[in-house]
Amino acid sequence: MKIIIEKFQKLIANQEMTKLREELLRMNEVDAADLIEQLDTEQTILVFRLLPKGLAAEVFSNLESEAQQLIISAITDTELSRIMDGLFMDDAVDMLEEMPANVVKRVLANTSPESRNMMNQLLKYPENSVGSIMTVELFDLKGDLTVGQAIQRIRTKGDGSELIYNCYVTDKQRKLEGVITLRELLTANDDQIVSEIMTPDVITAHTTEDQEEAARRIMRYDFLALPVVDGEGRLVGIVTVDDVMDVMEAEATEDFERMAAMTPSEKPYLKTSPLSLANKRIGWLLFLMVSGMITGGILGKYEAAFAAMPLLVTFIPMLTDTGGNAGSQSSTLIIRGMVVGEITMGDWFKVFWKELRVSLLVGSVLSAANFIRLIITYPGQYMMALTVALAMYATVILAKTVGGILPMVAKLFKADPAIMASPLITTIVDAISLIIYFTLAELLLGL
Amino acid sequence: MKIIIEKFQKLIANQEMTKLREELLRMNEVDAADLIEQLDTEQTILVFRLLPKGLAAEVFSNLESEAQQLIISAITDTELSRIMDGLFMDDAVDMLEEMPANVVKRVLANTSPESRNMMNQLLKYPENSVGSIMTVELFDLKGDLTVGQAIQRIRTKGDGSELIYNCYVTDKQRKLEGVITLRELLTANDDQIVSEIMTPDVITAHTTEDQEEAARRIMRYDFLALPVVDGEGRLVGIVTVDDVMDVMEAEATEDFERMAAMTPSEKPYLKTSPLSLANKRIGWLLFLMVSGMITGGILGKYEAAFAAMPLLVTFIPMLTDTGGNAGSQSSTLIIRGMVVGEITMGDWFKVFWKELRVSLLVGSVLSAANFIRLIITYPGQYMMALTVALAMYATVILAKTVGGILPMVAKLFKADPAIMASPLITTIVDAISLIIYFTLAELLLGL
Repeated sequence: MKIIIEKFQKLIANQEMTKLREELLRMNEVDAADLIEQLDTEQTILVFRLLPKGLAAEVFSNLESEAQQLIISAITDTELSRIMDGLFMDDAVDMLEEMPANVVKRVLANTSPESRNMMNQLLKYPENSVGSIMTVELFDLKGDLTVGQAIQRIRTKGDGSELIYNCYVTDKQRKLEGVITLRELLTANDDQIVSEIMTPDVITAHTTEDQEEAARRIMRYDFLALPVVDGEGRLVGIVTVDDVMDVMEAEATEDFERMAAMTPSEKPYLKTSPLSLANKRIGWLLFLMVSGMITGGILGKYEAAFAAMPLLVTFIPMLTDTGGNAGSQSSTLIIRGMVVGEITMGDWFKVFWKELRVSLLVGSVLSAANFIRLIITYPGQYMMALTVALAMYATVILAKTVGGILPMVAKLFKADPAIMASPLITTIVDAISLIIYFTLAELLLGL
Repeated sequence: MKIIIEKFQKLIANQEMTKLREELLRMNEVDAADLIEQLDTEQTILVFRLLPKGLAAEVFSNLESEAQQLIISAITDTELSRIMDGLFMDDAVDMLEEMPANVVKRVLANTSPESRNMMNQLLKYPENSVGSIMTVELFDLKGDLTVGQAIQRIRTKGDGSELIYNCYVTDKQRKLEGVITLRELLTANDDQIVSEIMTPDVITAHTTEDQEEAARRIMRYDFLALPVVDGEGRLVGIVTVDDVMDVMEAEATEDFERMAAMTPSEKPYLKTSPLSLANKRIGWLLFLMVSGMITGGILGKYEAAFAAMPLLVTFIPMLTDTGGNAGSQSSTLIIRGMVVGEITMGDWFKVFWKELRVSLLVGSVLSAANFIRLIITYPGQYMMALTVALAMYATVILAKTVGGILPMVAKLFKADPAIMASPLITTIVDAISLIIYFTLAELLLGL
């Protein structure tokens, strides 16, 4: 990439515009957008203006918001309206969502009334809804066409649709009647009637549905697109597989963030300010710190025990860390299993039973390792070794069963299971494991 | 789903085979496979045999390995060879990878010599390589065809390819010369020459490349497929977007598992035995437990301090938990940023500097909250409150900078950054924070 940028900067410096344009035309629009973003303000405008109309819109939709704003502020109204013409509606709306109000105003003023109307409607769908990511430029046709007529229609009018590989059959009220893939059309005979060979039972999404559900449906059926219908069953858009991949990636990132006790962020890390990052992190840290104080309070009740035998204190980090780790292994697997749809609420007993057996196995190994290590390091102190080993065993069993079940409990109370990840599980397990440890110490060591 | 199963079981019981077949034909093949998996052995075979040839192969490729084996063991060689004919090569190979040797032998014996040869080749590609997930049934054509001829070829021969929406142009040696989408073909004039309108600079993947890299490339460019070339630049297959989504999902799951200190598992949770689950978890737990013992050893050095002032012990859980949480917030963001390609090794100073500023902000709030709480709870004990507050401040700063940088250090040493997630960071931060805490206690409280 660095070499390509230098080459372009050289071409700009030498004013070799024809060569520059040739190079740009050979590039994929994503790479061209990447390149433009690395240039300085003046170069950005200059290079962008070299792009022919169609490519300009494609490159523009791949630019980051900052570069888009820069270009909008530098071009004429005519140029702007030409770009807006070339953009797909969903890309235009994505762009507008990031722009300051005055820019939005100028952009909308340079858009055809019909598109402006549509954009305003799309902007109203709630964030993360199917409506907010759908494409309205879809390819639809009437069922009474012959295959030959349908193909002809695609050949003449297909250029304005984002995806022509799924064709949707609608009636006069735009109600969805069926779907036929371009592949099915092309491999059929020209004189067959579309409605006779289409698939009538169409799997759809609704405008108000969560985008992640539509994404999972596309993944499940390996579709290239999913038709979107409104409350009256009218076809209003499609969700395409490329948008779905972005949704899946963003949702996974959100889960990672939530599971590490952060409020999810929309912006990439390197573009987020320290203050905003701190803001996303402080809430959970404070909450968990207060929980840690409660654990400390529990520990305070056993002050007499560890004052009498300070050695006991040195096993606390190992015990609580192992409990936390054992618990978050379980909760992570269950949370992820719930996200990908493998584990449902009905499986709660299977999960509990499996985690119990796993913890019996894992707990045995860990407590045996501890017992052996302790009687070697502290010869003769069998009861202390037994205390630590038993506390370890009980902690692992509790951590794993609690870690496995709590994500499901969260879901039961309509909370995101991801909050029951490592940090919260660790805090909960900490408190329990310390109670077990010191209760055992009092019993076995008579403290 | 439950209602549908009951409906089917009723139809089977009443021997209404025509109706059953009709219902099956109306279903999507993924749903049909789901349904068949819920039936008992006898019903499974019965329903599967009702499917017409083409659909049978499609449903079969969507079944889980157990159901596939069940069906293979129950059908005749003729039926088996008909299914194998209908399967795409990549689905057939995926299936064979899960089968016991004797089943593989029988399956290959009922496959055409040509397909058998190809499957044997595909089976040799290493796991997670592009070769192991690619489809060999691609659509290629020669560049000297006219658009009209190319479309005619798709209409007559497109049926055997998994994806006909990207057509690859190759020379006599099967070297890739260009790509043209079906959309471009259809919207061009019939008498244009393919080589004149194709895109000559094709973005490709290599057979031996990691599948995740190819997946990222498809995501970046919003492609429906990526052509795969071998060492000599010959076109040997394509990677399709639906396979890529599965790769992305599996890779995210692996990261979740690794970040919760587990060896990633190939099988879904509910289908994995407790012994196998325990096996994936015990290694890291043991390693982290030993690290916890070392932390305990460090703590042992300050026995005198906490014997003199047992109250100090009660702040340990809060301090180490908060340190662990603060550190894993940072490491999680950096690990994820590296996975999605937003953060590269060159950004290490930006990351360090950002985490330092975030930790100064977050640390101030947390230590101030602690100080105020302590002087209220323990009036007059200002030095103790100061000790805890300062230890908290230093811990947060260290946790966040170390948490931000260690994933990059791991990558530097060719390790997976994901290992530097919550569990390991927590253990490392624990040890450091305890040293800081007791050093401060010795200095400020004169213990």
